[in-house]
Amino acid sequence: MESDSNNLGKPETPSNSEAEAHEGGGEEEEEEERDPESNSLRQPLLKRNRTLSSTPLALVGAKVSHIESLDYEINENDIFKHDWRSRSKVQVLQYVFLKWSLAFLVGLLTGLIATLINLAIENIAGYKLLAIVGFIEEGRYISGLIFFTGINFFLTLVAAVLCVCFAPTAAGPGIPEIKAYLNGVDTPNMFGATTLLVKIVGSIGAVSAGLDLGKEGPLVHIGSCIASLLAQGGPDNHRIKWRWLRYFNNDRDRRDIITCGSSSGVCAAFRAPVGGVLFALEEVATWWRSALLWRTFFSTAVVVVVLREFIEICNSGRCGLFGSGGLIMFDVSDVKFSYQAMDVIPVIIIGIIGGLLGSLYNHVLHKVLRLYNLINHKGKMHKLLLALAVSIFTSVCQYCLPFLAQCRACDPSFTETCPTNDRSGNFKRFNCPDGYYNDLATLLLTTNDDAVRNIFSTNTSSEFHVSSILIFFGLYCILGLVTFGIAVPSGLFLPIILMGSGYGRLLGIAMQSYTNLDQGLYAVLGAASLMAGSMRMTVSLCVIFLELTNNLLLLPITMMVLLIAKTVGDCFNPSIYEIILELKGLPFLDANPEPWMRNLTVGELADVKPPVVTLCGVEKVSRIVDVLKNTTHHAFPIVDQGVVVPGTIAASATELHGLILRAHLVQALKKKWFLPEKRRTEEWEVREKFNWVELAERELKIEQVAVTRKEMEMYIDLHPLTNTTPYTVVESMSVAKAMVLFRQVGLRHLLIVPKYQGAGVAPVVGILTRQDLRAYNILAAFPHLARPKLS
Amino acid sequence: MESDSNNLGKPETPSNSEAEAHEGGGEEEEEEERDPESNSLRQPLLKRNRTLSSTPLALVGAKVSHIESLDYEINENDIFKHDWRSRSKVQVLQYVFLKWSLAFLVGLLTGLIATLINLAIENIAGYKLLAIVGFIEEGRYISGLIFFTGINFFLTLVAAVLCVCFAPTAAGPGIPEIKAYLNGVDTPNMFGATTLLVKIVGSIGAVSAGLDLGKEGPLVHIGSCIASLLAQGGPDNHRIKWRWLRYFNNDRDRRDIITCGSSSGVCAAFRAPVGGVLFALEEVATWWRSALLWRTFFSTAVVVVVLREFIEICNSGRCGLFGSGGLIMFDVSDVKFSYQAMDVIPVIIIGIIGGLLGSLYNHVLHKVLRLYNLINHKGKMHKLLLALAVSIFTSVCQYCLPFLAQCRACDPSFTETCPTNDRSGNFKRFNCPDGYYNDLATLLLTTNDDAVRNIFSTNTSSEFHVSSILIFFGLYCILGLVTFGIAVPSGLFLPIILMGSGYGRLLGIAMQSYTNLDQGLYAVLGAASLMAGSMRMTVSLCVIFLELTNNLLLLPITMMVLLIAKTVGDCFNPSIYEIILELKGLPFLDANPEPWMRNLTVGELADVKPPVVTLCGVEKVSRIVDVLKNTTHHAFPIVDQGVVVPGTIAASATELHGLILRAHLVQALKKKWFLPEKRRTEEWEVREKFNWVELAERELKIEQVAVTRKEMEMYIDLHPLTNTTPYTVVESMSVAKAMVLFRQVGLRHLLIVPKYQGAGVAPVVGILTRQDLRAYNILAAFPHLARPKLS
Repeated sequence: MESDSNNLGKPETPSNSEAEAHEGGGEEEEEEERDPESNSLRQPLLKRNRTLSSTPLALVGAKVSHIESLDYEINENDIFKHDWRSRSKVQVLQYVFLKWSLAFLVGLLTGLIATLINLAIENIAGYKLLAIVGFIEEGRYISGLIFFTGINFFLTLVAAVLCVCFAPTAAGPGIPEIKAYLNGVDTPNMFGATTLLVKIVGSIGAVSAGLDLGKEGPLVHIGSCIASLLAQGGPDNHRIKWRWLRYFNNDRDRRDIITCGSSSGVCAAFRAPVGGVLFALEEVATWWRSALLWRTFFSTAVVVVVLREFIEICNSGRCGLFGSGGLIMFDVSDVKFSYQAMDVIPVIIIGIIGGLLGSLYNHVLHKVLRLYNLINHKGKMHKLLLALAVSIFTSVCQYCLPFLAQCRACDPSFTETCPTNDRSGNFKRFNCPDGYYNDLATLLLTTNDDAVRNIFSTNTSSEFHVSSILIFFGLYCILGLVTFGIAVPSGLFLPIILMGSGYGRLLGIAMQSYTNLDQGLYAVLGAASLMAGSMRMTVSLCVIFLELTNNLLLLPITMMVLLIAKTVGDCFNPSIYEIILELKGLPFLDANPEPWMRNLTVGELADVKPPVVTLCGVEKVSRIVDVLKNTTHHAFPIVDQGVVVPGTIAASATELHGLILRAHLVQALKKKWFLPEKRRTEEWEVREKFNWVELAERELKIEQVAVTRKEMEMYIDLHPLTNTTPYTVVESMSVAKAMVLFRQVGLRHLLIVPKYQGAGVAPVVGILTRQDLRAYNILAAFPHLARPKLS
Repeated sequence: MESDSNNLGKPETPSNSEAEAHEGGGEEEEEEERDPESNSLRQPLLKRNRTLSSTPLALVGAKVSHIESLDYEINENDIFKHDWRSRSKVQVLQYVFLKWSLAFLVGLLTGLIATLINLAIENIAGYKLLAIVGFIEEGRYISGLIFFTGINFFLTLVAAVLCVCFAPTAAGPGIPEIKAYLNGVDTPNMFGATTLLVKIVGSIGAVSAGLDLGKEGPLVHIGSCIASLLAQGGPDNHRIKWRWLRYFNNDRDRRDIITCGSSSGVCAAFRAPVGGVLFALEEVATWWRSALLWRTFFSTAVVVVVLREFIEICNSGRCGLFGSGGLIMFDVSDVKFSYQAMDVIPVIIIGIIGGLLGSLYNHVLHKVLRLYNLINHKGKMHKLLLALAVSIFTSVCQYCLPFLAQCRACDPSFTETCPTNDRSGNFKRFNCPDGYYNDLATLLLTTNDDAVRNIFSTNTSSEFHVSSILIFFGLYCILGLVTFGIAVPSGLFLPIILMGSGYGRLLGIAMQSYTNLDQGLYAVLGAASLMAGSMRMTVSLCVIFLELTNNLLLLPITMMVLLIAKTVGDCFNPSIYEIILELKGLPFLDANPEPWMRNLTVGELADVKPPVVTLCGVEKVSRIVDVLKNTTHHAFPIVDQGVVVPGTIAASATELHGLILRAHLVQALKKKWFLPEKRRTEEWEVREKFNWVELAERELKIEQVAVTRKEMEMYIDLHPLTNTTPYTVVESMSVAKAMVLFRQVGLRHLLIVPKYQGAGVAPVVGILTRQDLRAYNILAAFPHLARPKLS
């Protein structure tokens, strides 16, 4: 700003040979393979076989899409600074008030929708199960099978058709995509209104169909969708243009509110408010601060209050077949136990086996998902058929397997009624004579929630026969693997809990003679260990289980089991969410840099990228159009030539003015904010033309803008639109430390400045983006780094 | 490394006039007020009245000390890189194993010491109270008073003498200092062996003396001390020189292990493992990652197991007067209640009053602490007298006030024995006839833990008379204010819980006719609200209360109360820990930059600092000695002159090679690693002389090193000792964004590089440190920024 005497007449060509060696650096995602000749090898020691290629393509709902990064950096250009300075106290209060209101609304709506989903599922599944009981009682076994399979087929069809045709992103749990979003990866169509609706209806359909999947993952996605829609003022095409909402038109505030949404979702799924907050903290969120902790907590508190109110209402019988329930889903608070030294052994065994099984599950599920990807890529029909085949297989197994079990006599010592023919209940009569119950029907011919409740039930050590639990465990192992990848909204929590509780109870029967821990407790611990073995969470799982089981005295052994299972699991493979992230190709930035990243500098990384494209502070329109059309970069450094440096003898220096976004260049072209002559503009001139709400828009494409030939010869003063405070690293910085900066501060672009200072040195060496810092991409360009030892 | 043709013959003078305008920047803490003339005003718009002064002095244990910053950045110099590259797989495994072993040991030792403290306190206080009961029964009231006051006086004397004479840093809770440590402020003598011992003994003395303070804060400090001592291999003068421990000789690993220690301390204090982890996360720690969450959780799990084991042992009566107890301290799990719409009103009222009272308490305590600082500064005798005066006042009040209460008849509906003459018990007979009890004695003449247990007791709505609770509340308000600042180890949790439970129970009596919530529940909620109103924590407090009270159904209303109380409190003043941090002058960096920091660039900040002192890559010994003796900076940029930039026409450029630490310069001088001629050294030459364990040492002073006149003319090659990858910002970066970088990445020094590129431009504009980024210091140099509006 000090120098108005800029030498503006030197539009740089994209690759001027004199700056080749040091300016070799590219910018943004989707670089094509460039001419390798332009990368003169500065250090012959480093064997590079090709340039750094970035693939910003990811699998979004079984469809390959182009994805962009989010920008959590504050774009401090003149317009932002002015708007920011002119914000009054009242506006700041409006902003704070709105933030809290949104957190409240997110909690409220998530609570309401979760209740709605629960009500729908319990009623649909309930009436279905009652009808089956009718068929069985009349001995019409075949008709029952046809009815059961048919209903489930129809429900799965609804869910799958919705997912396949209207919102492919609604399939699966959605948690990996949310995790990626909070890491800075903007997966397209993840948080739209269609996705939300399909997710709600599809989740109801899929869970009522008795498929081996839960509503937990989808609820997290639903919470995040609600948060995103509220923050942007409605669905994309019908947004409310409310003045207040403009404050939320940035990636940072949306990130915060989506974090609230995801923890509300977990809270609604497990009715675990503290667990929800911790889940968001430990598993989902990348950045975190105390203020966010507090707001998230507020959202989950609202969810809990909403859920409680509905449970009160439903307890009075006004919700159809919706059973009774409190805040706790699988209450084992009546188990009294004292720890003994001997009890440590089964706890360790459960932990180890849980870790082994969990990592095995991750491994096999990975293979299955790869296979399913191949099938799903073949087209919509294949996806539908796959989902329906799984549905038929599930229904047939659930209906037919109980016939294998022997009828068991009701023990008068049971506190619950035995046998029952209700939709729920721990002792289903099924095909047995009066006074007898079918233990396998209790586990299979019921909703998944009830199955968990039954297998968690305490003081019922003789209820289930070993063979029944073996069949149950085996079936759910198979179903847990084949169901997850189909094109319906599906959560991972419940399948893993079902498997885990089965194996836990089996272990409990095996260890019966050694300890006096209750078998229900074994089931709970088994479920916890498998969760930890597969998902690798500890603190949040511990709190969720605490809130689920309502028994604080369980805490120490739960902690031990979780820690052991996670440790064992980590020896074999990463967590299931990381596996899915990798499968989908989402460019997730890990918390810790790889060790070999210390042996590489960002300068070397810039060398293998195409040269950086810079613009002058006052640039010709034709050059801007040319650059926008011929590159796919999303940001360009602004460099002023021939600047007089105050206080030095340097007569003609170059100045790094900042970084301009592609979106802002397009805006300037679209607004035709052209100058007939090369000059700097005043701040008010810019403010008249642009406001920062427009500058927050990203959608505009260069193809939508028409520039006449005459306009091509005019100029644009880019200074006011430039972010003057981009984060930078010196070219000698190691990639490891650059990555720490990139992730900790939440950047989209990181400028590389030279370590040299002198005439003729370019002020920018390159730009790093998320793709450039991913280990996979770097290793493709520097394969020798992957070797365990360098020196 | 490419250029061996460095022009090494130009030792810069600290303030060469040509670089005045842009090189005006200083480095490290403790800058004296320099000649203001050396700061030429570049931008006359900014009215500066003086230079940026940094005051690294803080009140450490009532003594003003010089404090340093910690360095969480990885110092990537040649020696580190070599050592790091040469680490074998086995060594990496050793490191991981040791990290987990330390986490285990921290948990184990914290658990053991916490048990020891509890045992000692319960027995000392128990025998004291039994003796009093003897005096009372014989009617010897005056002798009882003298005995009671005398014993308490003696116990306080022991605690205070230890604190005053041996470890002033052991006074107070220690939590603010730990919070500052984890933020990067190295308060001296905080984690020594003496401090640990004094804290343990002092805490036993002070709590047994019946003073209104808790063992919670001290336990957090004890946990952190144990962690620090373990990580460094013992007390400062008797360290174990174990090879493995050298891996922990850095600030980053110590930070992690101290985080484990602090959460173990909270866990041991409240027997709340999840609460402990969350407390460390929400209140204490500045940086956090998932891996740390997990290790912290492991430590607290160990603590809980140790505590449980000891409670099992003590339950069999082998611990003297140590009562019975489980993992839950104040169990209210037998309260059954259902929410009604009406119950929302008292919950809101409790929250609001809790917030008001909490902020009022913060305000008054601030005033009291200021007054106490004045008294404490007068000398050790004054400190002692203050502590003893508070002890006598407390004892007299606790003994005499119960005589004011009327004896109340025992109701046969009480489930507990009534009256009792034991050391604990809910219905103390004191001076009453048989069949009657003194409700005020129940609250006052007991340990603080028992007092809380009694006032939390449920289904005892008629136990306490309003006047008794009023007296109790009033007394503990006064004691809570006068006790905290005295020179004994003191925690804040218990005084606030006592006050809060008193006001909660009063409110419960007042609201009796409106709701049917239990009065014990009111006491719990009152305590929670006052904690939130004063300490401003939410999630961790909620979980701690959950774990204390063992009643998960309390969760939603506890959340509401905490959120309301925190919101109300935040309207008036910051949290009590922030107030103490400010009082002590610890340079804590807040999470969020002040709004006006966006209007200031780091270049402007560098302008008001003394010019930066740079060194050449191969520097003359005399200049190094000169610089070390005449500056107090802790790091110096290394700039090579006359470098040939590969690939450009710039024949003679300058190169920013990196940043060298003062400690490393002193090491090089001490090792007499001198070169007779100006030349670059080979890596192996350096490795022979230095290993990175030595380079991690910080204690060596330049005054301890003697250099002969002949050596003064020799050279040192500083390149291998230089951190080649310091974090940098361009001078146009706003202070707000620089502060975000500084805090998020955990830096000690942040280099400012110029935005200009040309001949004669200095490659470094300045260095920012923690002190430069503190709002208070910046506002002293730029007072106009404090005004609400700039434009």
